[in-house]
Amino acid sequence: MIDISGTYTDQYQLTMGQVYFSKGEAEETAIFDYFFRKLPFEGGFAIFAGLETLLDYLQDFKFSDKDLEFLSTQNFSKEYLDYLKDFRFRGKIFSMKEGDVVFPGAPVVRVEANIIEAQIIETLLLNVLNFQTLIATKAARMAIQAKGSTLIDFGLRRAQGFGGYHASRAAIIGGFEATSNTRAGRDFHFPVSGTMAHSFIQSYENELDAFRDFAEIHPKNAILLVDTYDTLKSGIPNAIQVGKEMESRGEKLKGIRLDSGDLAYLARKSREMLDKAGLDYVKISVSNQLDEHLIKSLLDQEAPIDIFGVGTNLVTGKPDAALDGVYKLSLFKNKPRIKLSETIAKVTLPHRKQVYRLLDDSGNFLGADVVCVAGEGNPEMMYHPYDPLKFRFVGDVEKEELLSLVMEDQKRVHKETSIKEIKEFSKKRLEQLPTEYKRFFNPHIYKVGISGKLKDERNSLIEEHKNKRS
Amino acid sequence: MIDISGTYTDQYQLTMGQVYFSKGEAEETAIFDYFFRKLPFEGGFAIFAGLETLLDYLQDFKFSDKDLEFLSTQNFSKEYLDYLKDFRFRGKIFSMKEGDVVFPGAPVVRVEANIIEAQIIETLLLNVLNFQTLIATKAARMAIQAKGSTLIDFGLRRAQGFGGYHASRAAIIGGFEATSNTRAGRDFHFPVSGTMAHSFIQSYENELDAFRDFAEIHPKNAILLVDTYDTLKSGIPNAIQVGKEMESRGEKLKGIRLDSGDLAYLARKSREMLDKAGLDYVKISVSNQLDEHLIKSLLDQEAPIDIFGVGTNLVTGKPDAALDGVYKLSLFKNKPRIKLSETIAKVTLPHRKQVYRLLDDSGNFLGADVVCVAGEGNPEMMYHPYDPLKFRFVGDVEKEELLSLVMEDQKRVHKETSIKEIKEFSKKRLEQLPTEYKRFFNPHIYKVGISGKLKDERNSLIEEHKNKRS
Repeated sequence: MIDISGTYTDQYQLTMGQVYFSKGEAEETAIFDYFFRKLPFEGGFAIFAGLETLLDYLQDFKFSDKDLEFLSTQNFSKEYLDYLKDFRFRGKIFSMKEGDVVFPGAPVVRVEANIIEAQIIETLLLNVLNFQTLIATKAARMAIQAKGSTLIDFGLRRAQGFGGYHASRAAIIGGFEATSNTRAGRDFHFPVSGTMAHSFIQSYENELDAFRDFAEIHPKNAILLVDTYDTLKSGIPNAIQVGKEMESRGEKLKGIRLDSGDLAYLARKSREMLDKAGLDYVKISVSNQLDEHLIKSLLDQEAPIDIFGVGTNLVTGKPDAALDGVYKLSLFKNKPRIKLSETIAKVTLPHRKQVYRLLDDSGNFLGADVVCVAGEGNPEMMYHPYDPLKFRFVGDVEKEELLSLVMEDQKRVHKETSIKEIKEFSKKRLEQLPTEYKRFFNPHIYKVGISGKLKDERNSLIEEHKNKRS
Repeated sequence: MIDISGTYTDQYQLTMGQVYFSKGEAEETAIFDYFFRKLPFEGGFAIFAGLETLLDYLQDFKFSDKDLEFLSTQNFSKEYLDYLKDFRFRGKIFSMKEGDVVFPGAPVVRVEANIIEAQIIETLLLNVLNFQTLIATKAARMAIQAKGSTLIDFGLRRAQGFGGYHASRAAIIGGFEATSNTRAGRDFHFPVSGTMAHSFIQSYENELDAFRDFAEIHPKNAILLVDTYDTLKSGIPNAIQVGKEMESRGEKLKGIRLDSGDLAYLARKSREMLDKAGLDYVKISVSNQLDEHLIKSLLDQEAPIDIFGVGTNLVTGKPDAALDGVYKLSLFKNKPRIKLSETIAKVTLPHRKQVYRLLDDSGNFLGADVVCVAGEGNPEMMYHPYDPLKFRFVGDVEKEELLSLVMEDQKRVHKETSIKEIKEFSKKRLEQLPTEYKRFFNPHIYKVGISGKLKDERNSLIEEHKNKRS
């Protein structure tokens, strides 16, 4: 079992904390930004997910007795361990809304807290947000392709261990309708779904008896798996027979599932056979190594598929194993901070920041976010973060502020947003994003620029560090 | 928080369970095999991991009140819910040893239990074993390349959510020495490690003060991160200064860490500068998107690296997101069972089975495992599972039985094996595997054959099903 407490962190957070503590800097305020540098899946957008999960854990975040006992073996001072005994996350969290479409370079979350608090929660924050954002994005890509068809998460068995728990949550946010993961359904309140495995068919002397028993016991929820022996010669004929028997009892067979072979061909043939038998209401569901590209290909071929069950490629975000989200110090002791790098693209943006999204006349997204110093007001100009030749007047463009306070004094500022609300918000925001950003190949690049004030602040800090060195 | 209980499963396990229960088959014994079909990473072996984790969870596996409350909303019968209230896993588990080298097609775990128990634990078993085996294999690939250098797991922040917990466990089994993951260290009893992030350096007015404070507070454990501003012009000179100051106090700087840039070049230059300053004992550690190929490349270039910190590519098993392990019914009501398929390679092996590993004269692995019907005794012949032209006499070859009873009556048969023991066993077994199976490119293919008796049993079941259909 995993409970979230103080040791759900990287050891260096605690090691640095010891130094801040010993040097009397424990109460100094720091600001950190959470952002990522590269969109996953060579796509044009990401869906931000995991915020409510994070806030849940942060509200109760403390060191357990077991944690403190372990840490007492780790070369920390007695005084510091006493400090950790009373540790709570008492800082503020500013964030974009969970479910929003988000882009590289703009802070998605801003943490303002004393330096020890801000460091200790870093690992949990990255662990939760990187993964759920990855999976919600993957799910949204599938949902865009699935059009009207239903998507169901089948991933738990191939998920990365306990990662499967939040993968199912993120899948729902990204557009899935249900999950096979009973635990996730129980805890996050969304529909769970599941009928039978091949083993069920194998456990009977013949397929027909297996179908019959299942339909008898689950008359409202019978989706028969038809490929155990031979889909078109055995599975579908037996399913039709059971479907007709159900009709004679005033019941309706819900569907059949294909889990191997050429899904486009088998779906078409199955549809023909079912329709011919008068079972045109029986739904066809498919599974077996699906991803967004296969879903697109199947529907491009006009395969008559009603339900897609997606496993491994959904819950692991294959082929991208991780979102590259980072957490960077931007202010400490009221002084803006940067991290230099050989390439200016990796120099971090200093200061307490706000992000504005540009809107077009109809309220849709214009295709750019502007990162500003918080409090500087509506930015007039947007600059490319490191190409000095690229800038644009945006003073007359409608804008939306993206970061707002979501947590302070160990509590959410508003009541918890439900998965359903997050899912609906996400869908709406994706609709506001022009279609060119949503295509698979060479999607339009959404711009993230910076304000003049932020550019100047950053450049003067770069100068300062250069002078110090020379 | 995640606690492992009955709803940590796929809904269809419960749906099928309802049918078995209603049809009076709840007490019928089933045998399922856990095996995988494809080695990850295009490699020549896998390291089996996760068994002790699984046994821990199975010992206490039951439905909580919260589980039962949720399931009462899911169209199950009152009688079945009462049955689930008393549910325990009372079956037997036979398994290969955790840490062993394992290969596609041979059963790694065999579960014998009543059909409902065997189905309900399927998802947990696959979720735990697939993931830890993937990561232990990835870690072992890195350990083979790292030769004498130390490997440390830095992955938690980029792990797939809570998957990071067991990823750290599996990394240790595969050959890592320590982890940054404090929680995993606490629970699994292996060394945790961590010093400082860039934010620590940024929080100071200058790098030298940051290094000095850290060395003062952690004199025995100072690994200074030298790339925040400029590795060779600022980081290393400041580290040398602090190292000399430590010497004057009778202390020793432990190491420096490089986290960006050309690691081979910077390691060499850093080594030169440190040695010239008399700090030849200061270790060089590196991190930044490492994997087994980069580790090999760095050491092929003779980069003087003592410690590798590996994150994302370790804990997510990138580029392979999942091991394709499956769980197939092989016997029910004392009758062997198979699942047919269009291709014979995917037809499952029926019956209660045992696996023998062939050994050479010196006790090393000959390069083949033979799958037999349990109890048939030492197999005389080994057949290719589906190429009838390939077989071999193995009656005179030394063999080792791989599957043994590890759990019955809700308890481990032996006491829990420690991570340290598993890690040492794994290392020894990898040494017994000839080197051709361990290389990266076109590794030798380890053979998994079947006995004559098993081949005949399978073929007659295939015939039986064909006759039934025609």
